[in-house]
Parts: sequence; structure tokens; C-alpha cells
Amino acid sequence: MTTLEWIMTDFGVTEYDNELFELTKDSPYGHFFNKENRVIRSSRDLNKFLDHYREHGAESCYIYTGRGPSSADMHLGHMVPFMVTRELQRCLRVRVVIQLTDDEKFLFRGEFTLEQYTEFAQHNKRLILKAGFDPELTSIYIDTEDIARFYPTMLKIQNRITFSQVHAVFGLESSDSIGKIAFPALEMAPCDPRCLYSSSKNMRCLVVCAWDQDPFFRLIRDHAKALKFNKPSLLHLNYLPALDGQEKMSTTGSVSNFSIWLSDTPSQIRNKIKRAFSGGGATQELQQEHGANIEIDVCCIYLRFFMRERDAYRQLTEAYQWGLIETKDIKPITASVIDEIISHYRN
Amino acid sequence: MTTLEWIMTDFGVTEYDNELFELTKDSPYGHFFNKENRVIRSSRDLNKFLDHYREHGAESCYIYTGRGPSSADMHLGHMVPFMVTRELQRCLRVRVVIQLTDDEKFLFRGEFTLEQYTEFAQHNKRLILKAGFDPELTSIYIDTEDIARFYPTMLKIQNRITFSQVHAVFGLESSDSIGKIAFPALEMAPCDPRCLYSSSKNMRCLVVCAWDQDPFFRLIRDHAKALKFNKPSLLHLNYLPALDGQEKMSTTGSVSNFSIWLSDTPSQIRNKIKRAFSGGGATQELQQEHGANIEIDVCCIYLRFFMRERDAYRQLTEAYQWGLIETKDIKPITASVIDEIISHYRN
Repeated sequence: MTTLEWIMTDFGVTEYDNELFELTKDSPYGHFFNKENRVIRSSRDLNKFLDHYREHGAESCYIYTGRGPSSADMHLGHMVPFMVTRELQRCLRVRVVIQLTDDEKFLFRGEFTLEQYTEFAQHNKRLILKAGFDPELTSIYIDTEDIARFYPTMLKIQNRITFSQVHAVFGLESSDSIGKIAFPALEMAPCDPRCLYSSSKNMRCLVVCAWDQDPFFRLIRDHAKALKFNKPSLLHLNYLPALDGQEKMSTTGSVSNFSIWLSDTPSQIRNKIKRAFSGGGATQELQQEHGANIEIDVCCIYLRFFMRERDAYRQLTEAYQWGLIETKDIKPITASVIDEIISHYRN
Repeated sequence: MTTLEWIMTDFGVTEYDNELFELTKDSPYGHFFNKENRVIRSSRDLNKFLDHYREHGAESCYIYTGRGPSSADMHLGHMVPFMVTRELQRCLRVRVVIQLTDDEKFLFRGEFTLEQYTEFAQHNKRLILKAGFDPELTSIYIDTEDIARFYPTMLKIQNRITFSQVHAVFGLESSDSIGKIAFPALEMAPCDPRCLYSSSKNMRCLVVCAWDQDPFFRLIRDHAKALKFNKPSLLHLNYLPALDGQEKMSTTGSVSNFSIWLSDTPSQIRNKIKRAFSGGGATQELQQEHGANIEIDVCCIYLRFFMRERDAYRQLTEAYQWGLIETKDIKPITASVIDEIISHYRN
């Protein structure tokens, strides 16, 4: 059983089934919401959120996403939840709240000082705002700077959760710092609309996050009723793989060279894509004979995530799959698609 | 062995030895600092604080005290740390920081909502300011309102303290809320001058607190060096007994009638003092024959704490002790001394 199957069996996660497809199909990156493209992995109570949206309107809904600012720069994998959220905002006209957890990175990673993580968050905030969110409908908060907004809600959540529970859900031990033990409540706090909006009555939250963040929200869903707000719905995203085919792009260490960064120049992007793990035949002959495995070909995965022209995407990857074209034909197109995205973040 | 003897033996607490007597002897409530009067119980590193004060001046020192706002009103026992602190400020001209822990009361007591504890704190703040602190030198913070000031320092402290440590020091268990487990770091935070003052280099803190708060500060003293600030010094105060002779005045329940409240009218004070536990003889004859036990006579203890005319205090209590006067002679004087203090807090 895969991790996802296990989560889905035991805890009520639902495989994504194109619930957002109709609402988003005319948008530039509408393909994010087509389950074929596997940008979205799964969800919780997504239909409840959409029913609420249809019944009570955009004003009564919001999307919550965020990031732990582990570095000043951000890589393309970091941007996926923000791109998905921005696209949903464009289509649904809902408010968005983004939380940058500089405190979490300090407590859980601790390679830098708290002040450095706060600086990373400030830099990330500037980058994220370039993603194209509607400024009227979007709030970005940095935990250490905006703690006053969340603190009372965080206390009410902390008051209901025991050490035994964070041990069971996050595996935290007696030897862990009380900072780590208490932190999860702050990531949960924006699920309560009352700390965000003045007219928060009966609002409903959709959390957009990488699937590994599910435990935070599973836990707050257990307490939402007692705390008198609606259980948040969830949209779990898949990771964007690294250039070498690893499951996920990396922020630190030598493997961070296998990530594509928002600061990369067009020529750096071209060179990185040249090194991307290929699912094509090892020689021209083998490629012509057997074609490519586009499931493991990193460029094909990037095109599946990001290429806006979906007819061209399908023709290209099919031709590659059947051996009609080669890796060297795919790579420049991939570099160009990625460069177009990253050009938004360059000064 | 008494609790104090045990603390003193095992953890380096020093019996108070009139270290503050010279500095304070001309002030209206200078008798607080005479060890005979047992307002002060013990200390930690008090001489280090005073040496620092003499060497670097008032600017380089501050006093930190506070209160958990368990009720809107405050009783006379609550006021002792504030009266002692105010008197020290008057004599030493040092800055004072006061923390009101509405979050702590919510997490640890929880009889009221967080919002109610915040209201109690706001009311307490107004009362405490009437104690006569120098407004130029005094800051009062309410945790939920002023959390932004303390949060980064709190995180750095939380990052160094494990659940095992709070279990050992405060007896917190796995079944306790993560709010309780994390809270102690916030009570410790004002010991780091950098979250309080812009020119905080080499500042030194004196904590004035009831002796039962010692564990918080013992723990932060262990971490101060690693966190790069001076270990706080401590002044531990004794409790003011309740009218029935119990060790400590009570805030809640029926026993709160044995407390004298800042909202009590002069006639309420007179009536309460009439009920105060007496150490005098049960009859006029017995009193004349054996005199009074002024160690357990609640009025004598109140006079020991609060009567400004110390010659009169000594004559009065000696006459009472030797049976020359009776309980009925002591009580109106006690009511008058207490009413004078409480009159400052009436509108």
C-alpha cells in the first residue's frame, strides 16, 4: 500500500476527481485542475467547500496556503501551491491568506538564526506577491511580524491539544523543544476565519498544501466543531520532482543544484534542463525503437505541470513516447516553458 | 525541612539579609526592606544586581514583575509585589516592566474565556497604574495584546527547553495541553532586556515575585548564558495571609471573602478586619494575663506589612503582646492603615 492509499483508507482522504475542473477550465493554467495532470493528489471535503461557495458566494470562502521560508530564494517546487492558489483565486474570486512560518523553520530546522529566517520570509513575501494574486483579495502574514493577529486563536487551539496528541500525530518526543511541541497550533490558526476577517460568520476555508502537511489540518478538523468554526476543506498537491528525478526539489545542500530557482538566469535554466533525468532511449536508435518513458522523464513531468498549450503538450509527449522525437527535442521547449514562468519573478 | 530550607539548600536561594535596607530606608514604605518585617523571603544573586546598579547606574538596570489576571478586581495580597516594586523604583530610579499573563490564566485555570481574562488584565492594568509607578519609567504589557514584543524572544527560549525539562520543573504531563507546556517561556521572556529596551546592552534584571514563581526564573537562569543575556536576579516575597489566617489570600470561591479587595468600601474593610483571626487572649482576663501571639494575629501581620509609622507599630504590637491592650484596640488601627492604602485605588 502506498502512503497515499494508507492515508486515504484510514483517514478519509478522497482521490481528486476533477471537482474543480468546470470552474477553472478557461483559465490560463486550468490544466492544474484536470486530474490527468496529477498536479493535485487528493482532497478532503472539497465538495463541501464548493457547495458552500455556490450557495453562499465567494465572500463566504477563502483559501489558505503558506510556506516555511527555509531560504531567501524559492524554487519552482515551492511555487506550485502558490500558482494553484492564484489560479483558483482568478476563477473563484475568493480571498487568499498566505502564512510564512519563519518561526517553524527556526524551531524545526535551525540552520540559521530566527532573524535570518524572518529575512527569508520577507524576501519570499516579495516573490510570492509577484505570482499575480489580486492585491485586494490577498493577505500575506509572517509569523513573527504578525503574531498578534493569530495569538489568541493559537492559544485556544493549544488549549485543546495535548502533548500526547502531537506525539501521536507528528511523532514529537519528550526530548523535543517546547517550541516544536506548541508550533502546530499556529499553522492551524488561519483555519479559523475569525482571526482573519471581520465578517467571518459561517465562512469556509480551503487549505491548499503539499500532501505532507495533511496532519496539521487533520488535527484541527477534529477540534473545529468545539472551537465553533467550520472544518477546513483540503486540496493536497503533489511534489514537483527535482532535475535528477528525486521525488521533490531540495532547498539546501548539494542537491539544491537539482532545483530550478526563481533567481536562475535563462542560460542557467537551459543548462539545468540539459542535465534533467531523461526517460528517453539511451541512443537515437533505442529511442526510435522503444520510445521514451514519459512517466519518469523529468522534462515531461515539468511540461505536464506547466505547459499552457495542452494540445501541443499532448502531441509532443506522445511523439516522444512513441520514439518519433528525441530528448534533445523536448529539452529546449521545457526550458522555454519554465523560463516563461520564472521571468515573472526577475526584477 | 521547610520548603524554603529545601529550595535554599538545593538550588542556591539566599535568605534575605537586608541588602536593600540602606538604599530604601528613607522611603515611605522602606520597612518592606527590613528583614525583620518578613515581607521579603529570600533572593538569588541580589548582590550581583546591586553591584551592577552601583557600577553601571540606574539606566543599566530594570525590575520585572507581573501578575496572572485571575479576576477583574485585585486583593491586597496581589498588590504586595507591586508596592515593593514601586518602592524600589522610587529609591533606585530604575525602569519597571510589568507582565499581565491573561494567556496563562486561560491555559492553566480556564474558568473564563480568553477574552474575559484579557478584560481582567485591562482592568488590572488600570488598578496597578494607580499604585504610583513613575509613568516615564514603567511599562505594563498584556500578553495577548503585546505578544509581538515578546514572541521572538519566547521562540528562542522555547527552542532551548524540552518537554522533559518542563515536566521536571513544573510537573507538566503528556496529558497537559501544548499551551501549558509552551507558556513558561513567555513568563521568562522579559528577563532578556533586548525585547524591552533599545539600548539593552549589558542590562541587568531583578525579578520581584512571590516565592512560588521561582521555578520559571531558575530555569531561565540556566539558559541565559547560551541566550547571551545576564542571568536575572530574584527577590522572593512572602504571601500576605488571608483574614482567617490561611497562608495566602484567595481570589475565587467562598474563601475569597477572607481577602481584602481594592473595591472594598471603608465599612467593608472595618467589618472584615473585625472578623480577622486574632492571636489575643480569648477573654479580657486571659489577654491581660498571657498577652497576644502576634506571630499568628492577622492584624499584627497586616500592620507588620503596611504600617508606615514603625515606632508606633512596635509600641502597639509590644503592648498587645504583653497584654497591655486588647484585640479591639488593634483592629480599628489596622482597618485605618489598610483603608489608607486601598483609598488610592478607589475612583
